[in-house]
Amino acid sequence: MEIPRQQFQSKLPIIKEAIDECDFIAIDTELSGLHRPGGSKRLDTLANRYTEYKEATERFLIIQFGMCTFTWDEKGGRYMAKPFNFYIFPTSMTGKIQPNRIFMTQAQAFDFLAKQSFDFNRWVYQGIPYLTVTEEKEYIAEAERKLNDDLPEIRIDEKEKQFVENAKEKIKKWVEDPKESLDPDGVNIDTRNAYQRRLIYQEVRKSFPNLTAEGRSGFIRVVKFNEKQRKKRIKEQQSRIKKDCEDAVGFRKVIDMISASRKVVVGHNMLLDICHVISQFIQPLPEDVQEFKKLANQIFPHMIDTKYLTLTSPDLQVEIGSGTALENLRFETNQEKFKNPYVDMSIEFPRYLHDKEHEAGYDAYITGLVLLKLHSYLEIQANPPPPEEPEEEEKEEEEEEEIPEEEQKHRGNTDGWDISDDEEGEDAAWLESEEEDQINQDDDEEDIYNYGSTRYPILDENGKPTSIIADYINKVVMVRTAYVCFNFTDPETIDSTGDAFHIINTARNPLPSPSVLLDLFSEFGKCIIDTPNKNVEENAYETFVVFENLKGEANAIKQKMAEKLTAQQEDIQIQTIAEYSEKLLLKNNK
Amino acid sequence: MEIPRQQFQSKLPIIKEAIDECDFIAIDTELSGLHRPGGSKRLDTLANRYTEYKEATERFLIIQFGMCTFTWDEKGGRYMAKPFNFYIFPTSMTGKIQPNRIFMTQAQAFDFLAKQSFDFNRWVYQGIPYLTVTEEKEYIAEAERKLNDDLPEIRIDEKEKQFVENAKEKIKKWVEDPKESLDPDGVNIDTRNAYQRRLIYQEVRKSFPNLTAEGRSGFIRVVKFNEKQRKKRIKEQQSRIKKDCEDAVGFRKVIDMISASRKVVVGHNMLLDICHVISQFIQPLPEDVQEFKKLANQIFPHMIDTKYLTLTSPDLQVEIGSGTALENLRFETNQEKFKNPYVDMSIEFPRYLHDKEHEAGYDAYITGLVLLKLHSYLEIQANPPPPEEPEEEEKEEEEEEEIPEEEQKHRGNTDGWDISDDEEGEDAAWLESEEEDQINQDDDEEDIYNYGSTRYPILDENGKPTSIIADYINKVVMVRTAYVCFNFTDPETIDSTGDAFHIINTARNPLPSPSVLLDLFSEFGKCIIDTPNKNVEENAYETFVVFENLKGEANAIKQKMAEKLTAQQEDIQIQTIAEYSEKLLLKNNK
Repeated sequence: MEIPRQQFQSKLPIIKEAIDECDFIAIDTELSGLHRPGGSKRLDTLANRYTEYKEATERFLIIQFGMCTFTWDEKGGRYMAKPFNFYIFPTSMTGKIQPNRIFMTQAQAFDFLAKQSFDFNRWVYQGIPYLTVTEEKEYIAEAERKLNDDLPEIRIDEKEKQFVENAKEKIKKWVEDPKESLDPDGVNIDTRNAYQRRLIYQEVRKSFPNLTAEGRSGFIRVVKFNEKQRKKRIKEQQSRIKKDCEDAVGFRKVIDMISASRKVVVGHNMLLDICHVISQFIQPLPEDVQEFKKLANQIFPHMIDTKYLTLTSPDLQVEIGSGTALENLRFETNQEKFKNPYVDMSIEFPRYLHDKEHEAGYDAYITGLVLLKLHSYLEIQANPPPPEEPEEEEKEEEEEEEIPEEEQKHRGNTDGWDISDDEEGEDAAWLESEEEDQINQDDDEEDIYNYGSTRYPILDENGKPTSIIADYINKVVMVRTAYVCFNFTDPETIDSTGDAFHIINTARNPLPSPSVLLDLFSEFGKCIIDTPNKNVEENAYETFVVFENLKGEANAIKQKMAEKLTAQQEDIQIQTIAEYSEKLLLKNNK
Repeated sequence: MEIPRQQFQSKLPIIKEAIDECDFIAIDTELSGLHRPGGSKRLDTLANRYTEYKEATERFLIIQFGMCTFTWDEKGGRYMAKPFNFYIFPTSMTGKIQPNRIFMTQAQAFDFLAKQSFDFNRWVYQGIPYLTVTEEKEYIAEAERKLNDDLPEIRIDEKEKQFVENAKEKIKKWVEDPKESLDPDGVNIDTRNAYQRRLIYQEVRKSFPNLTAEGRSGFIRVVKFNEKQRKKRIKEQQSRIKKDCEDAVGFRKVIDMISASRKVVVGHNMLLDICHVISQFIQPLPEDVQEFKKLANQIFPHMIDTKYLTLTSPDLQVEIGSGTALENLRFETNQEKFKNPYVDMSIEFPRYLHDKEHEAGYDAYITGLVLLKLHSYLEIQANPPPPEEPEEEEKEEEEEEEIPEEEQKHRGNTDGWDISDDEEGEDAAWLESEEEDQINQDDDEEDIYNYGSTRYPILDENGKPTSIIADYINKVVMVRTAYVCFNFTDPETIDSTGDAFHIINTARNPLPSPSVLLDLFSEFGKCIIDTPNKNVEENAYETFVVFENLKGEANAIKQKMAEKLTAQQEDIQIQTIAEYSEKLLLKNNK
């Protein structure tokens, strides 16, 4: 379902319903540009990477946001997907005090989107605006200042003094004898520009506190309100401010609803998406990466990255391997072994969207679909269902044959998404017959086709992730770094399959600074130094040295590094990441 | 005529022909954003304003460029207009080494364009790319480095050493006995990425200097060329580079052609357009405004600003007054007194464009049309034609009646622009009959309808502006400053209608610094200090103080300022701008 600017407010209840009822929400974004590419750099520290992403959020915008909710349908034995696609544009056409935004565009990003048939006209003409929380507060404060005439007094230009005097004279005359005037209900002051209008408001406020000035097109009308009229006018103004503000807050409402639901948010390689969502709709990202983690976790308490899940689950690595691009996961999960659960698209949702890779709404749908398939596979691997009797299996196949014709139309190799071109007409026919169906709904319950899928919830009744998925919650892929993942709730761990070394020293003697270490080790290859950390438990300082290209065998190099370190400072211990990981595992298993 | 990306190269000859044949060229641009608005500031210095514009050119892009050529048609007694509309987008889809451009967009600018039905899809999908002169040189140098294998040697990663060894072995085997091989003409090395491909090129160059490596999709083919084949290959590569480069230089060719023609370039309030055109297509703007003037004057030797012309010509001020917006000038010049000359649109030009205000091609057309009308009016005022005999006038009216039907279709209240919806079909009919017409063209010459307009050239036979227009050449409007205009060839003059003062001192004693002067005069109102200048002729230092809002009468304030100045420094003289201008006029008239 594409939500254009003009329908956004009226469609909010449908969006809210989808979020409220669902099991989880998949998201995706399209951006006006990507963060600076690393160039030849193949390894990055956590702090650098976060700074890069933070800077990207200050430059580029989300121009399309995709959201797809997935809801278990008990009667149908399937999940129902509701994909939404939103173009996002910071227009100043709605709302009167919309900030004037300037953002960056990367020509290559638009070229990429053009290859996917992105509609730039819909973006500018139909895109939904937004305000962050701070911007909303400023908006309201400014509107209230205006409402209360609480504006700083402005100086009257030499040129406008006569204009103001004439206006005051005219108002005075009318006040003295309104009935003698041609217009006994009020007096109009013609104005040529905003400056003159502001002067008139100011003069009425100062010199005629009992009168009210109302802006009209090309003039200001000065009238005398009684108490009732005055109250009515204030009420009208307040409700207009509220309406304008709601229009201006715009798309942030959707993010607020997702956050308020506390539901699982699924993405694919989602770190940059999350950075942009928070920065654009909630607040600018904090300087410190640890602060960011806290903030993100407050907003989205349960995130799952389908790329991270595939890359780190041993079971999935066996089945899928290194091809973890979204399109590839979609292809792989079409295999028979990923057939549970069946996922269908809700009838009133965008069947006009065929295969639309890289449209955010479509990618969100595929991401959620992939998560359902992968998660279900892991659950089945962990707790295989009892082997079925051959007869039963036959029976099941028979059942498959019995899928009613209407239902079959919504099945395809990608479940409910791929549909025939003449779908629309058939939808209409189906919708027409719905009314009739509803009358008999209660009696017909046994007629609803059940796909017999098994539901595996991600969160248990207490809102905690189930054991199978718990390891993958709030961890997202962070490529070209020394880390296994970006971890929203815990410190990152160094990738133990790389060429890395752990260095530790007593708390009495801090480690040499990263730049000293870099100089010291440069002859062994290009490397990065992890931010040195005080390990409280061990009462020691520790850090990791990670090589892009280690010039030699790890154990031999370790010896040479140890010699250099000891020459520099006594009592430093060094071990390979393999040794370190092994010890950690032993300790944790104790 | 709209020129899309895919047709740009093939349409260049038509564009060149239009420029070569024309009397002058009108231009207009649409931008991705406007320079920072001055806010409440109502006066600006020249240096500040230039810096503001320069910064704007570094942020925002021309996204649409309009050009309209105007050519005198002797036989038809009219001008023929050829409007062109170009969307400009720095795509990297054409050309292989297109720089990756990041630019800024101001949401309000896109909102404004959306109100004028701007087509953002055409912009991204059809927009023409460009390279500046420097970028073109870099492009060619880079391409030649690649062609000559003049690339820095790269290190072979530990992981890829075996891959390189295997490839060398395979090539060696083939070299030793190509006929024994399955493929006697060459040997293919499979590669998985750009890094592996680069390594293979490097190894072939180093270890097999007689062989040539050619990139294919997914592999590299290594072959042995004889001298003839080798030369042919280099020739092919060079012509491909040339072709790629021409595609990448793209729209700059049009600007180069306009500049090379040395013809008059007309704009409406054109300073910002000229800044953007030079910065985007030629070179970044220089720091110093005087350098910019020289550069701009070299590129466009004769500029005319229709807004400046209208605002400063006493004759036009009488007729038109202060409504100098382009739409207003168009409206005013529809009056009978502006009827000379008749302007028609060339038959093959975009009759599909109806009234399209703020489409750059349309605005360029209107700008040129307005210039023809205004200039002709000034010429007629200066040299009124002898009064016509009443009979002759009648005769002329009769002639009007005799306009052939086809011609009439192209007339309307805006001359040749407004046309009926069924134009296309009729155009086609006309075009079909053209062939026939051409056969008899020489005999039919007397049949061509002559509109009887008078041509008033802007430049004389020596390429110098004629006396009527000379005062308006290379001067463009610069609003919200203390100056009459931005002057591309001379120093700016202070607007003598404002509240300004001229301060002068002997060369022995320079004036106090601008900041000291600002402090000194702040009590008299908000003011700016013009950059102090050494007046060689007078052997003195001079500057202007210009007030936004002078708090009192000019002569009284002059006295107070003089007292303050004398207290600060002796021998300083001050006069009002009115006094200064009068003296200057007297001196110049001597």
